[in-house]
Amino acid sequence: MPTIKPPLDPEANPRVKAVFDDIRATRKTEFVNNLWRALAFDPALLEATWAEVKAVMATPGAIDPLTKEMVYIAVSVANACAYCVHSHSAAARTKGMSDAQHAELMRVIALAAKTNQLVTALQVPVDAAFDAAR
Amino acid sequence: MPTIKPPLDPEANPRVKAVFDDIRATRKTEFVNNLWRALAFDPALLEATWAEVKAVMATPGAIDPLTKEMVYIAVSVANACAYCVHSHSAAARTKGMSDAQHAELMRVIALAAKTNQLVTALQVPVDAAFDAAR
Amino acid sequence: MPTIKPPLDPEANPRVKAVFDDIRATRKTEFVNNLWRALAFDPALLEATWAEVKAVMATPGAIDPLTKEMVYIAVSVANACAYCVHSHSAAARTKGMSDAQHAELMRVIALAAKTNQLVTALQVPVDAAFDAAR
Amino acid sequence: MPTIKPPLDPEANPRVKAVFDDIRATRKTEFVNNLWRALAFDPALLEATWAEVKAVMATPGAIDPLTKEMVYIAVSVANACAYCVHSHSAAARTKGMSDAQHAELMRVIALAAKTNQLVTALQVPVDAAFDAAR
Amino acid sequence: MPTIKPPLDPEANPRVKAVFDDIRATRKTEFVNNLWRALAFDPALLEATWAEVKAVMATPGAIDPLTKEMVYIAVSVANACAYCVHSHSAAARTKGMSDAQHAELMRVIALAAKTNQLVTALQVPVDAAFDAAR
Amino acid sequence: MPTIKPPLDPEANPRVKAVFDDIRATRKTEFVNNLWRALAFDPALLEATWAEVKAVMATPGAIDPLTKEMVYIAVSVANACAYCVHSHSAAARTKGMSDAQHAELMRVIALAAKTNQLVTALQVPVDAAFDAAR
Repeated sequence: MPTIKPPLDPEANPRVKAVFDDIRATRKTEFVNNLWRALAFDPALLEATWAEVKAVMATPGAIDPLTKEMVYIAVSVANACAYCVHSHSAAARTKGMSDAQHAELMRVIALAAKTNQLVTALQVPVDAAFDAAR
Repeated sequence: MPTIKPPLDPEANPRVKAVFDDIRATRKTEFVNNLWRALAFDPALLEATWAEVKAVMATPGAIDPLTKEMVYIAVSVANACAYCVHSHSAAARTKGMSDAQHAELMRVIALAAKTNQLVTALQVPVDAAFDAAR
Repeated sequence: MPTIKPPLDPEANPRVKAVFDDIRATRKTEFVNNLWRALAFDPALLEATWAEVKAVMATPGAIDPLTKEMVYIAVSVANACAYCVHSHSAAARTKGMSDAQHAELMRVIALAAKTNQLVTALQVPVDAAFDAAR
Repeated sequence: MPTIKPPLDPEANPRVKAVFDDIRATRKTEFVNNLWRALAFDPALLEATWAEVKAVMATPGAIDPLTKEMVYIAVSVANACAYCVHSHSAAARTKGMSDAQHAELMRVIALAAKTNQLVTALQVPVDAAFDAAR
Repeated sequence: MPTIKPPLDPEANPRVKAVFDDIRATRKTEFVNNLWRALAFDPALLEATWAEVKAVMATPGAIDPLTKEMVYIAVSVANACAYCVHSHSAAARTKGMSDAQHAELMRVIALAAKTNQLVTALQVPVDAAFDAAR
Repeated sequence: MPTIKPPLDPEANPRVKAVFDDIRATRKTEFVNNLWRALAFDPALLEATWAEVKAVMATPGAIDPLTKEMVYIAVSVANACAYCVHSHSAAARTKGMSDAQHAELMRVIALAAKTNQLVTALQVPVDAAFDAAR
């Protein structure tokens, strides 16, 4: 159950309807997932969040769309956001992620978390060689 | 300063030397960064960690090497591991990450962390459409 | 399902009953939420936890009660504690949090998480101007 | 040291100069802290980040400015972002946070983290009474 | 629901069957928990994960088995992994953890999280006395 | 640098002096580490924090002192608290942790973080067998 009362008929609000319509047009599907339905409790927050998701995730840029979804999954796993792991795993599959890629993604995420712990437990000093300004 | 006493002459230990030699050969560089020097306090832990890093990060697989580094950076940022962020940002640059890609990677990581918080704050229920077994 | 076996009749234990009675009196409600029912498996842990919650959250201090609940929500979101997000969002509403404040709280939490990631990804050095002892 | 090469003369770029000028005008100070100097490596990321920080943190809204800074500190502490803890503790002091409020803020953050762990360790089920839609 | 499609008859794959058989033999039980059933979607990931769990958790070493489970619970709580908290709390009980020890473990985890926040909020400098190499 | 101004002569305050004296007596050392010197900015917070640390960590209970320190290290690593990792690694060595135990502790922490990620990435449903109330 959500912590806010989601509007029963969110699209009765024209600002919400405009965002939902843009989500449908951008993603070429009738499906609008629950995150957007929950955010509809505050149209301004809904608009700002969708504008940023559209700009970063649905606009061609310097990183290909599937890689972006994999990065999104990695952050969502690290932050233990179950909903986000589900929604972006589904999005990655839609964008072509194979089972082999999914398994390899899990290996990288798990290894990174593992060495993160080792480094923090050891308190390893940063090598001068990593200086980006050298 | 590290939490363990790193060996002064780690390569005096043949197990450590073998790992360092393999790191140099695999990465085609004389440079062995501090993580491995710190892990040398326990040769078995050093061997197991390098074996896994080599298998996951330095072996051709289903995901290209630069994408893996980007995922590694994402997890390291989420876990606030400064050393790991430095070492894998340097590795990503070595593997061809441009400034534009680096900036876009930060956008995706930051957006993911942001929507992770919104979803957790809202406690959005998972859509049935995300079921991988449908 | 909890990881401990919650007592079937927790108030049969006089130490538990005393805590539950104080919760009811302090909060002016008959409702005792599940956290306290679970903690009843160890009366000493129950007593110490309630004593601290009462002292920090239900005693007038230097920060007003609604602000404290908002901070509590923020930490709980960052730690991905679903139960805590629910219980403290409900408490904040009881203390007067409007939907507009709830939405703005989410904006601040989400922005903080976002810039936290940017700063960690960039490894920005701390400005000398931030020194509290200057 | 940062993971990107910060521009030596960031304000030579007119987009960067415009953001820096707006930061100075909005905050009524000549001081531009290191986060913005680092973000200058990508003017678009700088612009978008400042626009959001200005809209959420420097625009009157439903939550007072000092409360927002306290929430920002709480999230930054939970995410272990040292720079962010420093910059927003300084900002909170500028907005009037007393030592007594700072100490009480720490009590709330610490208590929240503590009960977050207890709840997660106990796996307490969410009370139906917390349903926002009841 | 999982993010991958778990095989309906995982032991039809001889690599999966070999791992499940070793889990049963090592743990002296017919029960194979859901983590392994989910990992069966990628036999290589299943094999590598079980090999490491067996080596670290089911092989006599320098730390006793119950202490290892307590550490595992602590990390799982900090990472908000509900499944892991459940599985390792059950494992700890199997290895003899009493209710009193469970309660004390929660006290230590909660206190550690609390002082972690205080230290990060205060930005306490590391004492020279903690240098392991002195 | 800390986010508060630590008192120059903390023991001029009799409440602070009483806590420092008790720290020295309890730990049988003249050394009072920086956490307590920073907390001295608010004597009540100092008193409450030390009282809890003494009760949980320096009082005989159901878990032995070294195990408690290992759990403390695990939580501190997961929360990326560098100071805490240093102070509790030092405390664990004082209480007899060998290099072999330190290395094994790192193995357990790293493995737990790894499987936490796998479980969260897979969204494994909790087994009914883990129910503590069965």
